Amino acid sequence: MSRPQDATPQDTGEFGLIAWIREQAEPGARQSKHVAFGIGDDCAGLRFTPGREVLVTTDMLMDGRHFLTSVHTLEQIGRKAMGVNISDIAAMAGVPVAAVVSVALPRFLGKRTAMELARGLERGLDAVAADYGVALVGGDTNAWDGPLVISVTVLGETTERGPVRRSGAKPGDVIFVTGRLGGSLDSGRHLEPRPRILEAQQLHQRVPLRSMIDLSDGLAGDLGHILEESGGLGAVLEAGAVPVHNDAVRMARTSGRTPLDHALHDGEDFELCFTVAQDDAIRLQAQPPAGVTLYRVGTIKAEPGLRIRHEDGRMNAIPTKGFDHLRVSEPGAEL
Amino acid sequence: MSRPQDATPQDTGEFGLIAWIREQAEPGARQSKHVAFGIGDDCAGLRFTPGREVLVTTDMLMDGRHFLTSVHTLEQIGRKAMGVNISDIAAMAGVPVAAVVSVALPRFLGKRTAMELARGLERGLDAVAADYGVALVGGDTNAWDGPLVISVTVLGETTERGPVRRSGAKPGDVIFVTGRLGGSLDSGRHLEPRPRILEAQQLHQRVPLRSMIDLSDGLAGDLGHILEESGGLGAVLEAGAVPVHNDAVRMARTSGRTPLDHALHDGEDFELCFTVAQDDAIRLQAQPPAGVTLYRVGTIKAEPGLRIRHEDGRMNAIPTKGFDHLRVSEPGAEL
Repeated sequence: MSRPQDATPQDTGEFGLIAWIREQAEPGARQSKHVAFGIGDDCAGLRFTPGREVLVTTDMLMDGRHFLTSVHTLEQIGRKAMGVNISDIAAMAGVPVAAVVSVALPRFLGKRTAMELARGLERGLDAVAADYGVALVGGDTNAWDGPLVISVTVLGETTERGPVRRSGAKPGDVIFVTGRLGGSLDSGRHLEPRPRILEAQQLHQRVPLRSMIDLSDGLAGDLGHILEESGGLGAVLEAGAVPVHNDAVRMARTSGRTPLDHALHDGEDFELCFTVAQDDAIRLQAQPPAGVTLYRVGTIKAEPGLRIRHEDGRMNAIPTKGFDHLRVSEPGAEL
Repeated sequence: MSRPQDATPQDTGEFGLIAWIREQAEPGARQSKHVAFGIGDDCAGLRFTPGREVLVTTDMLMDGRHFLTSVHTLEQIGRKAMGVNISDIAAMAGVPVAAVVSVALPRFLGKRTAMELARGLERGLDAVAADYGVALVGGDTNAWDGPLVISVTVLGETTERGPVRRSGAKPGDVIFVTGRLGGSLDSGRHLEPRPRILEAQQLHQRVPLRSMIDLSDGLAGDLGHILEESGGLGAVLEAGAVPVHNDAVRMARTSGRTPLDHALHDGEDFELCFTVAQDDAIRLQAQPPAGVTLYRVGTIKAEPGLRIRHEDGRMNAIPTKGFDHLRVSEPGAEL
């Protein structure tokens, strides 16, 4: 990892930046019982709760694909980079603990220097990390002549209830989502994910969650991952029950697609989709955890394939393939 | 993290690639007692040895800075990306356990597709991971129109002897390095780091290592980090004792610099530099661990600053500032 040095605020070098990050990050790092040692060595040293599994997830965000430096603030970009990773911890009903951050910074972006960009990013990263009790424990900072790239790795741990995998869905399970879906790319909502960490823990405390995923590729695609990982199951969604976000309604006015289509396929909602046994679904709906919004959207089936039942009774198959980052025919499709 | 899908070998999409990586990685992942679950969920789940600290380190490598896709093979680049991170675990005398990898792949590089690039990288990553018992447990794969960027995060754990920090040097400590230094950038040796994992563990088993760092910025710069982190100490290096690599001698023929200067400042040697108490230095030199090469290069001093004593008795101050990734005046200085 990168190394700090003594540095004045005027320094524009890596060591100046790292020293600055260290200064910003240290109060948080010091407060965390999980941090044995943070920024300032070859590795950070962390302590996890004995007997718990350590969770690890990583996401890389690139200018022009996951954000636009011409439109979005560096603070927003930092928030998104941290948020999408914490959302992956939420998807396992885990507790986020610490993060490391690597960045490739343009030397100049308009009139902004690499150092100014780094400070903007840092503000966003730090704000979200602080909200979720995540200690920023290290990273690697580079400047170059290419576009901005940021890669965040978040570590967490399971609770005493264990992790919730994608692979545990069973035929008959009821499918829930935790919020309204669609249109987040148009409204900019995708830049400010609010990972459902507490919601996931509360839900998993209340009833055994059989399978769970966070909605980054869209309900159809992400539910498809649950079906696939659970051994090739199917599902029926109830069209009238899928919660459509106002952003999706607004987007549908000009997109030529229906609001429902946006809700199913847009992605980057960062809500949770999970399945529970039917008895548990009844219990959960009768007494949802405080502050947790629940929408019951469908049922897991033994017969493979994702289908949607419209309010008039018609049934359609829906494709589950989400956005594919290497599909050469869809450049920039993510924004 | 990215999600696998069933995929044929012809798939060029992310899911195809991830499925392929999963297939490559799974035998290794399955063999590791540390992996509860690997690629194929929102997070990987790891188990660490109770009572040990978890080590985490991350490094990002960019085309044109840390490697050149016009010169180096993708397999070499993959080897370097994994090796530099494992070297950071060695620097703490730790045991590497698992890695996650994020990449931004050019859609096309000459005639090579993103998928072909990914497979080349993967071969290099996997070869080094296998050599060091590291399970590849997840990642994020993206294609774009920018240059190749790869970010690797490696997790490890301390041994029963605990971590070796940079901050533990004491005046009077003897300074050692584990191999010959300099010229690695010119010879291409920097692309094939051989992290000193076993060497570090054996040394730390034999005597208490007081401080340690891996040599990525050059002996002067990295020893500077030890001095700084140990509370502003100094050191004297013996010019005649610094082990100069043949690559440094070769490079000096055309660079206008001395071989010693290359050995002190080139960096990317990925040898270890460590300090031990004087009694322990004598013990270590009398009975070095089998297969570990040791060069005794100098002594830690209370008086701040790094100095070098030439064989004729002259003493010079040497700058400790290593290569600074954000120093705008040194574009590409790392290659």
